[in-house]
Amino acid sequence: MRSELNGPSAADVFPHPEYLRTVLEPNFRHAVKFFFQPLIEINRAHAIMLALCGILSRKHLRPLLGALRQVTSERSNLDAYSFQGAEEDLYFFMERRLEEICGPEVSGHLSVARSRNDVDMTLYRMVLREELLRTASKVAELQETLLQLADIHVSTILPVVTHTQLAQPTTLGHYLMAAAEFLERDLKRFRQAYAHVNCCPLGACVATTTGFAIDRHRLAQLLGFEGALENAYGCIASVDYLVESVGTLSALMINLGRFIQDLLLWTSQDVDLIHLPDGFVQSSSIMPQKRNPVALEHLRILASNSVGQCQSIVLDLHNTPFGDIVDTEDDLQPVVRTAFEYSSRVLDLLTAVLGSIEVNVEKALRKCQGGEITLSELADWMVQFRQIPFRSAHKIVSRVARVLRQQPARRQGESLPQRVSLLLEQASRELWAKPILVPPARISRILDPHHFVKVRKVFGGPAPAVVRRSINRHRKLATGHRRWLAGAAERLRQYPRHLERA
Amino acid sequence: MRSELNGPSAADVFPHPEYLRTVLEPNFRHAVKFFFQPLIEINRAHAIMLALCGILSRKHLRPLLGALRQVTSERSNLDAYSFQGAEEDLYFFMERRLEEICGPEVSGHLSVARSRNDVDMTLYRMVLREELLRTASKVAELQETLLQLADIHVSTILPVVTHTQLAQPTTLGHYLMAAAEFLERDLKRFRQAYAHVNCCPLGACVATTTGFAIDRHRLAQLLGFEGALENAYGCIASVDYLVESVGTLSALMINLGRFIQDLLLWTSQDVDLIHLPDGFVQSSSIMPQKRNPVALEHLRILASNSVGQCQSIVLDLHNTPFGDIVDTEDDLQPVVRTAFEYSSRVLDLLTAVLGSIEVNVEKALRKCQGGEITLSELADWMVQFRQIPFRSAHKIVSRVARVLRQQPARRQGESLPQRVSLLLEQASRELWAKPILVPPARISRILDPHHFVKVRKVFGGPAPAVVRRSINRHRKLATGHRRWLAGAAERLRQYPRHLERA
Amino acid sequence: MRSELNGPSAADVFPHPEYLRTVLEPNFRHAVKFFFQPLIEINRAHAIMLALCGILSRKHLRPLLGALRQVTSERSNLDAYSFQGAEEDLYFFMERRLEEICGPEVSGHLSVARSRNDVDMTLYRMVLREELLRTASKVAELQETLLQLADIHVSTILPVVTHTQLAQPTTLGHYLMAAAEFLERDLKRFRQAYAHVNCCPLGACVATTTGFAIDRHRLAQLLGFEGALENAYGCIASVDYLVESVGTLSALMINLGRFIQDLLLWTSQDVDLIHLPDGFVQSSSIMPQKRNPVALEHLRILASNSVGQCQSIVLDLHNTPFGDIVDTEDDLQPVVRTAFEYSSRVLDLLTAVLGSIEVNVEKALRKCQGGEITLSELADWMVQFRQIPFRSAHKIVSRVARVLRQQPARRQGESLPQRVSLLLEQASRELWAKPILVPPARISRILDPHHFVKVRKVFGGPAPAVVRRSINRHRKLATGHRRWLAGAAERLRQYPRHLERA
Amino acid sequence: MRSELNGPSAADVFPHPEYLRTVLEPNFRHAVKFFFQPLIEINRAHAIMLALCGILSRKHLRPLLGALRQVTSERSNLDAYSFQGAEEDLYFFMERRLEEICGPEVSGHLSVARSRNDVDMTLYRMVLREELLRTASKVAELQETLLQLADIHVSTILPVVTHTQLAQPTTLGHYLMAAAEFLERDLKRFRQAYAHVNCCPLGACVATTTGFAIDRHRLAQLLGFEGALENAYGCIASVDYLVESVGTLSALMINLGRFIQDLLLWTSQDVDLIHLPDGFVQSSSIMPQKRNPVALEHLRILASNSVGQCQSIVLDLHNTPFGDIVDTEDDLQPVVRTAFEYSSRVLDLLTAVLGSIEVNVEKALRKCQGGEITLSELADWMVQFRQIPFRSAHKIVSRVARVLRQQPARRQGESLPQRVSLLLEQASRELWAKPILVPPARISRILDPHHFVKVRKVFGGPAPAVVRRSINRHRKLATGHRRWLAGAAERLRQYPRHLERA
Repeated sequence: MRSELNGPSAADVFPHPEYLRTVLEPNFRHAVKFFFQPLIEINRAHAIMLALCGILSRKHLRPLLGALRQVTSERSNLDAYSFQGAEEDLYFFMERRLEEICGPEVSGHLSVARSRNDVDMTLYRMVLREELLRTASKVAELQETLLQLADIHVSTILPVVTHTQLAQPTTLGHYLMAAAEFLERDLKRFRQAYAHVNCCPLGACVATTTGFAIDRHRLAQLLGFEGALENAYGCIASVDYLVESVGTLSALMINLGRFIQDLLLWTSQDVDLIHLPDGFVQSSSIMPQKRNPVALEHLRILASNSVGQCQSIVLDLHNTPFGDIVDTEDDLQPVVRTAFEYSSRVLDLLTAVLGSIEVNVEKALRKCQGGEITLSELADWMVQFRQIPFRSAHKIVSRVARVLRQQPARRQGESLPQRVSLLLEQASRELWAKPILVPPARISRILDPHHFVKVRKVFGGPAPAVVRRSINRHRKLATGHRRWLAGAAERLRQYPRHLERA
Repeated sequence: MRSELNGPSAADVFPHPEYLRTVLEPNFRHAVKFFFQPLIEINRAHAIMLALCGILSRKHLRPLLGALRQVTSERSNLDAYSFQGAEEDLYFFMERRLEEICGPEVSGHLSVARSRNDVDMTLYRMVLREELLRTASKVAELQETLLQLADIHVSTILPVVTHTQLAQPTTLGHYLMAAAEFLERDLKRFRQAYAHVNCCPLGACVATTTGFAIDRHRLAQLLGFEGALENAYGCIASVDYLVESVGTLSALMINLGRFIQDLLLWTSQDVDLIHLPDGFVQSSSIMPQKRNPVALEHLRILASNSVGQCQSIVLDLHNTPFGDIVDTEDDLQPVVRTAFEYSSRVLDLLTAVLGSIEVNVEKALRKCQGGEITLSELADWMVQFRQIPFRSAHKIVSRVARVLRQQPARRQGESLPQRVSLLLEQASRELWAKPILVPPARISRILDPHHFVKVRKVFGGPAPAVVRRSINRHRKLATGHRRWLAGAAERLRQYPRHLERA
Repeated sequence: MRSELNGPSAADVFPHPEYLRTVLEPNFRHAVKFFFQPLIEINRAHAIMLALCGILSRKHLRPLLGALRQVTSERSNLDAYSFQGAEEDLYFFMERRLEEICGPEVSGHLSVARSRNDVDMTLYRMVLREELLRTASKVAELQETLLQLADIHVSTILPVVTHTQLAQPTTLGHYLMAAAEFLERDLKRFRQAYAHVNCCPLGACVATTTGFAIDRHRLAQLLGFEGALENAYGCIASVDYLVESVGTLSALMINLGRFIQDLLLWTSQDVDLIHLPDGFVQSSSIMPQKRNPVALEHLRILASNSVGQCQSIVLDLHNTPFGDIVDTEDDLQPVVRTAFEYSSRVLDLLTAVLGSIEVNVEKALRKCQGGEITLSELADWMVQFRQIPFRSAHKIVSRVARVLRQQPARRQGESLPQRVSLLLEQASRELWAKPILVPPARISRILDPHHFVKVRKVFGGPAPAVVRRSINRHRKLATGHRRWLAGAAERLRQYPRHLERA
Repeated sequence: MRSELNGPSAADVFPHPEYLRTVLEPNFRHAVKFFFQPLIEINRAHAIMLALCGILSRKHLRPLLGALRQVTSERSNLDAYSFQGAEEDLYFFMERRLEEICGPEVSGHLSVARSRNDVDMTLYRMVLREELLRTASKVAELQETLLQLADIHVSTILPVVTHTQLAQPTTLGHYLMAAAEFLERDLKRFRQAYAHVNCCPLGACVATTTGFAIDRHRLAQLLGFEGALENAYGCIASVDYLVESVGTLSALMINLGRFIQDLLLWTSQDVDLIHLPDGFVQSSSIMPQKRNPVALEHLRILASNSVGQCQSIVLDLHNTPFGDIVDTEDDLQPVVRTAFEYSSRVLDLLTAVLGSIEVNVEKALRKCQGGEITLSELADWMVQFRQIPFRSAHKIVSRVARVLRQQPARRQGESLPQRVSLLLEQASRELWAKPILVPPARISRILDPHHFVKVRKVFGGPAPAVVRRSINRHRKLATGHRRWLAGAAERLRQYPRHLERA
């Protein structure tokens, strides 16, 4: 029983105008923009493979390759093409053009042993591997910037803040290496994601391969893949290649987003540790004095946007069947594009910003010279040189800290070391029975932030020599990653040339 | 200390090329597309209000309004405008054009008593209220389609499936009214969200208003708002207007997504209850027999995409400060646009699909005629007419069901009512001590799905008369919503004309 | 064909041990903890309604109500009850106990005209309305605290920070009213959500009501609902009552999370505007000087956790069918509980923290006395009293600001107003052709932050008199909300007593 | 200025009652349950390392280890311990007990060269690595079940459904291997996540290590880690170990959720391909005939819950600073526990369900025998044996399909092959100029689903021999994973024994 609310006419002809407008048209435009070139390559590889396997005769191969060349040359027409949906999508559009160019008796041979299903999945992976590789390259570049900055700032004192309060001194180099290290892990994750994406589903056809004796390994190789993805049903149905990719991207963006939060705080007038040059600073429409380091705020929201798109992709795939469904296909692709585009903007802008920030070295040092922030070292010193159990030393120094906060100086002209020396004597007398006497000069050395950092020579510590070793170690790891990146990129550059020549 | 990795030149001139490329340019393009007209209106309203309050002299008002008219006429140039970032954004671009047209001595007066902060927040709300209203109108249209369909199918038997198993008969009309009802609540949510969005932050300036005696209520009225948003700090900082809007959208999309899941299942070959006409059906590139009702799959993923964007917006706002920050501004806007655009596509396509589906009325009925699905009515009958406690009746009928499933018929030609009558006698003998005798004819009537539905006359039940009453009630509610929608839309149509004439 | 990997024995007996362990047992425990009392009430209301409608005989009603009283008294035994899954869930557990107490001939009558479906949905709504009401009450309490604080700090100068930079002065009272205002909107959202939740699905039975002439309105009234939820299919299938509730909660948590971010920043040593008393401050295990205001960090993550649970609930419901499914039932409930529990912790702790913070009034004022932050007022003054177009005034003052930043004072002892007066003269001479002379004493008044605030008397502005009016207005709105809250709470307190007496 | 809303008394004493109730108490309970044993081990390892490095004297080591043994033995007391917050958390609770047992002069030495920061981060990683390993083991077990099932069903015909429509035949074994393959990738992801988690942050202390010459590598080894995590700031601040872990978990749950959707559909009465035994099936409270395979619905929502928790964890970390903050610590841990607990329930229940499902082999075959579903093979055959271009063959067969659908048989007794043979002749005559004659017997063979599957011998195809090779290949890969799992598990079993003996 037809519930003919709309009348029959519109609904019975494909495509219904609403279907054209809400689905076919946007997806066609996206495909033209992102999938045209890969689709040409897939067609080419398929034709070559069929010929190699004796499924396509040599006499058909040549005109087919020629026709593909011609379609390629018509690419620019497509932007203005008035798409009315008759071809459904770019796949059939191209099939029709090939038919027009070399006739159905020739073009008709190209559709054997494949389907839109495996072609689409291959397209998505081809574009995604480019995005992964490009992103990973930008990560490597950002890491390189961090390593350089860390090298420059290996001795720049920086206060560690925990729970919004000054905690201990470290160096900016040490801090930056923490970021360089997470990027190293991000690169590892990108490599694994790339390995999973860079497998070729072509030849899976609908989901069951074909009765023709095609060579899926050859297809994979012609298109620059690492290999063929095995199970044909899984070729069409599985999406973990995508979930892993956006999970990797999301982890990177969360990492960077937290780093950006720190930079943003450091540019605030109250903290004032770094300074953005004018190229990244906007004015106010009203307040004459304002100098807004908004580039960092833009970085925060751009990173958030990328994470949001990644979580959206996971949601999109959630509770769908494990099979050939629209949900994993064309309508999802723009969200993937957007996720990577936002992260590209983050990486490019952040690298540019970091490459030109000014560090307020003096202010950072000054924050560490108040004495309080290095008091824990005094406790450590008492343990090492006065054999006091740490917890007792800690209690004595805590008492010193409390009095110091309430009465920073007892009398005019009393220096901090003198004050601490005196308070230490008093506190130890009360809490440790016998007074601990440490002369102001020694106190002064103990509380010096550079000394604080220098003695921390443990693996992973901030002592400049240790951080320099760490930089070198990461330079080597980075070289490995860059070599891999270059190799993968080269492969993606080479296969189209081979295809072209074939 | 400048860490001059990049060298100083690029970074010291605004805008840095990367900042232009990754931030200013995309945001300018978005603004040109969505904010141009509202920005003109805000400028116009501001000028008029200033003049009314005696802050702007009449002799300046006229050229300003003229200049705004000229800028409006230049709108089409902007698409091809080579934006280099010098103007930062559309706001300053427009300010510069006004200055060029009527000179700084005139144009300079327009910037008094406002700031980019309140202008931006007003822009976002003006575009968002349009989106909310347009979406709500589409919801009303979809609901109208559902009410019509429900009316047509008030007696069309439909099996209720619970936990993937056939449960009881109802009618398609009854089912569709459940959807019409949630849309009614969706409309209520949209109205509340609209009320919160449709308040005017203009005049809040940076966040503290101004020392000039401006009239914020007049501004609000000139721009078609319901009123002025009060606290000036909140005008700039608060985002719950947006969180509520996307929460409302998200609830709608979750509602529709679940309804779409049902439709999708009903089009499957195994279930086969509804049929999409050719306008919404795609073929396969390979399988000659295939007829894919993919419009419904597209609807599912488009709805998912909308939910994903909504969740992304919440994430974007999460853990940001409560103040004037970039995160709530230009970079977030495209995500809002996308969320609403996806939902528009869902509403338009779903309304079109529902308006032309065919219902397989016979098959739906057949699924309810096997007997099993109406057995619970037999238990109810035994309670009502044989005074057996429900749980005992239920046990007896369960026994009947089990035997029936194992041995559908004992002998050739035995009808279902005969079989049930016999089994009931046996089961009751064993479980209720005395046999319950119900003649096959009565069994036949009890198990009839139309009878099942007809006796369910309770408030909210599927009896056709009851559903018809419900349809009428919802028609009235819908009329109220439509009246409100028309009024709000009219207001948005009227204010620009008044502004223009002022 | 049985794929007998496990052997048949375990799988054929209900419940399979894994099913018991992973599903039945956790759900039973949750039900005992949260649903026991409402389930008793539903049983009681159902029995009474059946009797009133003449479906249950009076002679059965009394023992049934007695049995329900006895089951209630056995509640405490349930915590230690060794649940083996035989009863499936609490619903059947209670049915069995009733049968044991008053015999199947009596208890069997209670199961008529209902099903687990509508009972479960009623349970979820009964618990959820309590949670909504409790949360809304806490919101009202927090708002009351904000209104009190705003009143105290109506003249406390506070620097507005935009994009991490000092922007303009306002008052703490003005800022806090922005938060009080969003809470007002949150309360409105809670009321609407409550209205949608507080409808009774009972009597919908499986999804089609029943052939018995039950009174659904009476059921709703007996259980303290506002009314009966109409469409029976929707009673079972719809989830927007839940999506709206968690959307409302999520909006509240995003609002508060951003407010908390500000407080957290204000407690940092660099900003140092507020101070938490010792009751909310933790020490360090190592650093003797540390005083960590971690209560605010806990608030941030607790609010995040609540938002996360809310988004999880939306995801849980995504892409499920619109019908009676497990996804919307028992396994989802713990996530709902957790979402509300986290938000309760946030509201309680934040109210306690705000009730005892110390504000560093002097430091806040000092931040606004540097001159720069009020320079925009000088531009405004030039517009008002020297008839200079705003943009020109802004340019002149911008020049003043730039020079001032580079050379804060030209000579020893020069005061800020003197300096500004001089710079203004120079800048105007260059940019405005004629010099603008403003004596230092007037400059001093113009740049005074208290003056800045006082002149901002526009609707929503920070002038103390204006903020006081706003506080009063919101006190009145708050009284309305409190009255509603008290009424709703009273209703929830009263219906069980009426039920008990019935 | 104190805003003394609450009065001073409560707020000045630690902990404020609300802080105790909302933060300290829940976190202490969580710590007692999950962190007690690892904390003992960390204390033990730290003491041993200090002694080995000569920082702790041998005479203090013995009583410290003895005291730790005693604290361990008191574990059970903790469940009933009335925690009042004086100790802040379990860390200080244990420190206090050690002090009570062996005196401050001894216990005080244990706090040297560490902090709560690195201890907490180590605790989180120790618990998380257990969860990862346990989950990965369950994945391996599930995969083993799939491999066994695939082996059994290597020839069981199964219809592939694409876009809700029957597409082509494959085998159940082939389908299941697609799932086995994604689990293989999941295992790889788990191994990488494990490698990143299983690095030891101990010795990082606050974030800068220590001036004492501790041996971080030894600490790592004593606690069974793969090695020490390098950068000390990163040890405390980085969270990508967690984001990667939940990303991995999330990918697994999305994979399984989609597989579960299929199983759920297959149990529906309309599809009816698999059957759950009684152990997993629940009845209805009302409908006597119902047999609800709800175990699968529970699996769907449990998997959704796990994904939701994972996304919540990402949100929790979003926009936090990169440093030592509460957000990454105690309040986040319960969400991590919940995410893994839900996924454990999914894996256990799904493995149990799969181990005992019955497959309706005949029905699955029947669905593939209608003829339509294998028509694409007829087109392929025409290409291979009649040299027709694929697209032309496809058009001819499409015509056959259309007529066949409209008129399944022309006359009584006509068999499907006869009908197809005739239609093929007609269609080819019209569309290919010359008729293509294929005798019914050959048609019959071509359309046979077993034949369809058998000829698909391409890599990854469903031909039984090919699937068997694939099973073998994955068995080998699985063996590798199991060996790794066993090794990692053994290491986690061994280190506590070595620690105990030390």
